[in-house]
Amino acid sequence: MIAFVNGQFVAEQDAVVSVHDRGFLYGDGLFETIRVARARLFRLDAHLARLEQGALALGLRLPFPRAELAAHADALVQRNEAAEAVLRLTVSRGCGPRGYSPRGADRPTLVMTLHPAPALDPARVHHWQLVTATDRVPAGERLASYKTANKLVNILARREAEEQGADEALLLNTRDEVTEAASANVFWLQAGRIFTPSLTAGVLPGITRSVVQEICAGRGMPVQESPAPRALLLAAEAVFVTQSVLGVIAVRSLDGHPLPCPPLVAELHRAFCDLLRAE
Amino acid sequence: MIAFVNGQFVAEQDAVVSVHDRGFLYGDGLFETIRVARARLFRLDAHLARLEQGALALGLRLPFPRAELAAHADALVQRNEAAEAVLRLTVSRGCGPRGYSPRGADRPTLVMTLHPAPALDPARVHHWQLVTATDRVPAGERLASYKTANKLVNILARREAEEQGADEALLLNTRDEVTEAASANVFWLQAGRIFTPSLTAGVLPGITRSVVQEICAGRGMPVQESPAPRALLLAAEAVFVTQSVLGVIAVRSLDGHPLPCPPLVAELHRAFCDLLRAE
Repeated sequence: MIAFVNGQFVAEQDAVVSVHDRGFLYGDGLFETIRVARARLFRLDAHLARLEQGALALGLRLPFPRAELAAHADALVQRNEAAEAVLRLTVSRGCGPRGYSPRGADRPTLVMTLHPAPALDPARVHHWQLVTATDRVPAGERLASYKTANKLVNILARREAEEQGADEALLLNTRDEVTEAASANVFWLQAGRIFTPSLTAGVLPGITRSVVQEICAGRGMPVQESPAPRALLLAAEAVFVTQSVLGVIAVRSLDGHPLPCPPLVAELHRAFCDLLRAE
Repeated sequence: MIAFVNGQFVAEQDAVVSVHDRGFLYGDGLFETIRVARARLFRLDAHLARLEQGALALGLRLPFPRAELAAHADALVQRNEAAEAVLRLTVSRGCGPRGYSPRGADRPTLVMTLHPAPALDPARVHHWQLVTATDRVPAGERLASYKTANKLVNILARREAEEQGADEALLLNTRDEVTEAASANVFWLQAGRIFTPSLTAGVLPGITRSVVQEICAGRGMPVQESPAPRALLLAAEAVFVTQSVLGVIAVRSLDGHPLPCPPLVAELHRAFCDLLRAE
């Protein structure tokens, strides 16, 4: 596999960063996980737009303008002859003087790598078991809006879920509202309508979240944003989560309580796969 | 400068980690910043004990037992002939399969680097201007007890303070209580007694914080742990912060309000420097 590191295409074993890189030292960076389907990067522009927002918030200057970055990403896919894959784009603040101050760290590190991923099957929706994480995330935290490289909360939540035999963790905020899953946005069906937490709960503006909102709106059932305690999900007619790698994933249980899986979830997954292949 | 990377002493330019290292991808790791004075590592054992606590919390297996790690740290100081310096020890979960799950990432990365630092002058206490950070940190967050490599909150707080011409940021929690400075613990003097926030406010158990608690107890003025709103600091007889690199630092203003600097702060700094040189 060939990687892209600071403007160069390099072999896997040469894809390294300095131990002084602030990404390694502090998680001082951002990333994007982008689906490659039929050798094309799905919604690349939306991913890069989100990356730019994050860079602005962190005061981090991206080393390439959007069009150039998109061209490099595309070239990486072509060089690796990747048809179905996941592209990981990481940008960190690079190296600088020791300490938290970002002063003097003005040459960001930019890395893109490709990872094998199975093609999504429109006829097969994944089913996950979720477990609620013990730790709460701060409600309305500003950084939650950006895909930062500070992911210990997500990692420890996922680990906790896996230790209980589940697939993924559900994160609640300090107001005990549902925010998101460790690696996916959450939706639920209630009285025939589809809901998702609003971004202000402390939710990453997921690219697949937006795509599913588009799909639902196109079917005349616009997604409503609403706060939700965990109990509301347990009583829902369906719960599903969305992310770039697997699309729409049905939640078949939450904390051991089985949840219904009506055909709508599989239909939304199929509609997502259709878009993924069409664009 | 020679660095220590995964059991090897390597030249600076060879001190690299894979772009797939979870430290770089997610900040999935821990670190320690240890003072070197007269070529000796101050309170190394306490730093390594804290590191072990963090590793336990993150489910990360340290690659060396404490005594061996201490020997490597000491060897690094000797090889670099470092008399006055700072040693940075970083441990990350290393490489693993793509995604948040720590499964399959079972070979941690361990890096130690040395950084020049001026000798502390017992007769000269540093004076900082502090500015309160806009963002609040979650009160009672479990991860606050460990020196994790997720430091964006600290970095952005420091950046905000520097943009206002200050030296450092003061962090409040979601209960509006004082927690710590971005890179240091906070103490204040009130009615002749010394106070510091309790760890449960969301405070890193600083090694220098402990040393100062020892010093004060030895002088018959034990430090009291107490919650404090920012207003309490503004009315204090003195405010100071403590950290491994600079010892005891007087706070000469908070959000532009001048604060008194009685001789006690300089005395505590001198006592810290004496210990640093004696051990």
